[in-house]
Amino acid sequence: MKATRLGILGLGTVGSGLVDLLEKGGANLRHRLDHEIRVTRALVRDDTRERRLPSSMVTTDPAQVIEADDVDVVVELMGGIEPARSYILRALGAGKSVVTANKAVLARHGAELLAASHASGRPIGFEASVCGGIPLLRAISTGLIADEVDQMVGILNGTSNFVLSRMHQDGLDYATAVALAQERGLAEADPTLDVNGSDAAHKLILLAEIMFQTAVGLDQIEREGIEAIEPIDIQTADSFGYVIKPVAVAKRVEDALDLRVHPALVPYTHVLGPVSDEYNAVLLRGEATGETLFYGRGAGSLPTASAVLGDIVELVRHPDWRIPWDPAKSTKVRHVPGTSRFYLRFPVHDRPGLIGKVATALGEHGVSITHAQARLVGAEGAAGNLTILTHVTSEPVIAQVLSKIEKTGAVRAPALSLRILD
Amino acid sequence: MKATRLGILGLGTVGSGLVDLLEKGGANLRHRLDHEIRVTRALVRDDTRERRLPSSMVTTDPAQVIEADDVDVVVELMGGIEPARSYILRALGAGKSVVTANKAVLARHGAELLAASHASGRPIGFEASVCGGIPLLRAISTGLIADEVDQMVGILNGTSNFVLSRMHQDGLDYATAVALAQERGLAEADPTLDVNGSDAAHKLILLAEIMFQTAVGLDQIEREGIEAIEPIDIQTADSFGYVIKPVAVAKRVEDALDLRVHPALVPYTHVLGPVSDEYNAVLLRGEATGETLFYGRGAGSLPTASAVLGDIVELVRHPDWRIPWDPAKSTKVRHVPGTSRFYLRFPVHDRPGLIGKVATALGEHGVSITHAQARLVGAEGAAGNLTILTHVTSEPVIAQVLSKIEKTGAVRAPALSLRILD
Repeated sequence: MKATRLGILGLGTVGSGLVDLLEKGGANLRHRLDHEIRVTRALVRDDTRERRLPSSMVTTDPAQVIEADDVDVVVELMGGIEPARSYILRALGAGKSVVTANKAVLARHGAELLAASHASGRPIGFEASVCGGIPLLRAISTGLIADEVDQMVGILNGTSNFVLSRMHQDGLDYATAVALAQERGLAEADPTLDVNGSDAAHKLILLAEIMFQTAVGLDQIEREGIEAIEPIDIQTADSFGYVIKPVAVAKRVEDALDLRVHPALVPYTHVLGPVSDEYNAVLLRGEATGETLFYGRGAGSLPTASAVLGDIVELVRHPDWRIPWDPAKSTKVRHVPGTSRFYLRFPVHDRPGLIGKVATALGEHGVSITHAQARLVGAEGAAGNLTILTHVTSEPVIAQVLSKIEKTGAVRAPALSLRILD
Repeated sequence: MKATRLGILGLGTVGSGLVDLLEKGGANLRHRLDHEIRVTRALVRDDTRERRLPSSMVTTDPAQVIEADDVDVVVELMGGIEPARSYILRALGAGKSVVTANKAVLARHGAELLAASHASGRPIGFEASVCGGIPLLRAISTGLIADEVDQMVGILNGTSNFVLSRMHQDGLDYATAVALAQERGLAEADPTLDVNGSDAAHKLILLAEIMFQTAVGLDQIEREGIEAIEPIDIQTADSFGYVIKPVAVAKRVEDALDLRVHPALVPYTHVLGPVSDEYNAVLLRGEATGETLFYGRGAGSLPTASAVLGDIVELVRHPDWRIPWDPAKSTKVRHVPGTSRFYLRFPVHDRPGLIGKVATALGEHGVSITHAQARLVGAEGAAGNLTILTHVTSEPVIAQVLSKIEKTGAVRAPALSLRILD
């Protein structure tokens, strides 16, 4: 029986998950494929710690994995930019196929890695790098290839989604929800990259590159995190039938792409409405197929390892199989100010004439109010919030009017504005 | 530039959609693939009616398509069992690749068709046959191949889903909702196969065969239609936070498979909750990946044509690409009586002691009630309904107790029982 031998770079969460999957399901897979997939080498930081693999397989010397004769596929599960980038390049140079779950290195050095793959004739599989357990890149690049998919809205960051879900369902405040995510292993000690939209932006780069077959840079993505969202925002949204979700949007607008990551109010009845906790989902809009949604666990040891193994199986069955990707071809990307309804929260002190001041400024800019709610509990002059839902208007108009209201001194802090997804 | 030449059998809704897609997106596709896909022949019933294709391409003689030298791929879009089955066999025999959207012929003659495909070395592509525009078979058989997917619950019939959605959202009764579906082209003049679960059962056969790599027969699927559902069921379910959906279930239970099609109460917060109107969705549960959901249009001209074209593109790019399918290998399939909470509606006449009789019978069988609601409007003795939600119990117990209550003469018609999906 033929065999494919894996050299794993990094035996962390996903690497251990892969070893587990092969231990548990390897026999079944061998039977289905009439082909064996087994780990022969693994690079670790410290080879003295007891491991799941025999010590003869484990090394701290990258060359012992990347350039080993008994390795056919190098599985890069270290994450980060360096040395992941160099190791992938060396592996391709040594004639190995590569499978990786590393969105950061792909988003930043995609063109270089793909060129190396072409030069060596060896593939890079990277289904696991975007939304872990959801076979998303495969769906876009094969099942939907015959359609013109021109719009995507998704929940790409499980940590942010978990934090907002817990604030919504358990009434936690932001800090407590983040602490809970950390306790559950869903957020790093420093959760910044998850909650400020950077992680979602990396995934959005890859998704947009596959969807539109073009190169996208991190600086071309407008980013807004979830840090400013307070329980009152969650409650007010809820009272109007909305739930706040961390969304990412990619759409074609005339000759350019509009790429954005920000929290938004999503109606309960929307298909993204019940996408909670650490789950991810991607809603595509194609000319022929209409709406298609893909939902699942975006991260985690076993879902990600399963996606990695899916790529390996595909390469076993169809050695010439590739996901079409062209990160060298550049295109225009620009932020096209969108129009939508808006949720606005003005932190205020309860003073006579306050609501009139805010409402008048909005009216003067042609922004029409559908709902307004003042929560000014306590004595006159106490801190409170004025929340407003608007009719459809444009982003620049909202920016202008918020800046104007801030200058009048009517608010005690800058207003929060969130788009409403209808 | 190389070309793949299509011979289409049937220029109905999907066939015309395919011609449209190629006209509109053909140039783009040619550019992406460096390969041309074009229609050269089409079989129609009546070649005197004006058509979208030049008359030289259109014929009423199947041999002129199936055995034509200038056809590489035969695209079967006629539907039904015969002559679709014979034409597919002839096409494979003539060395053509086949792409089909015909779930009925695949569900019934899968083993024969696959054997012919193996014998000829030519593939059969059939992504379009299950849930039209959703690249589902591909996802299960490639992206999730490394996982053990052991459970599926989905909404596979768009017509039933549309009917129940309109009853729910517009307050229509069953007959009016069916008429609306017919008006919108979502239901046939005779909607029986859609509303009684047969269409969903055909799709479930194919899905289960791909998920579990085994043969499944139509008689192995327990079927229940949506015909008995009344507005009061929709309203009562709604008042408890549920929406009634037409679901299909496939799961592995010990050494057998349990396969079922029936309506069920789905919580609003469930991911299947917002799947409305003609949309389909499939929720898979894998050991490693956890829950994954695929959602989209399950039927319609362009979504289905897009899936057909997706298969053709895959065969252009990777001629040896196949969806693993083994409809010759049989396995045990048996209905395993499940446990769940139940919704029960007893059509009654308002008489003293009635509620006591029903409640007592339930109690004697150990069925515990969580909610009960009597709507006995009008004079004493008038027709009304008693609706009950139970704690978790088993199907045989419910069947027993309903039969017993019927015998007491307490009800004016057999009770309706629906499972609750929690």
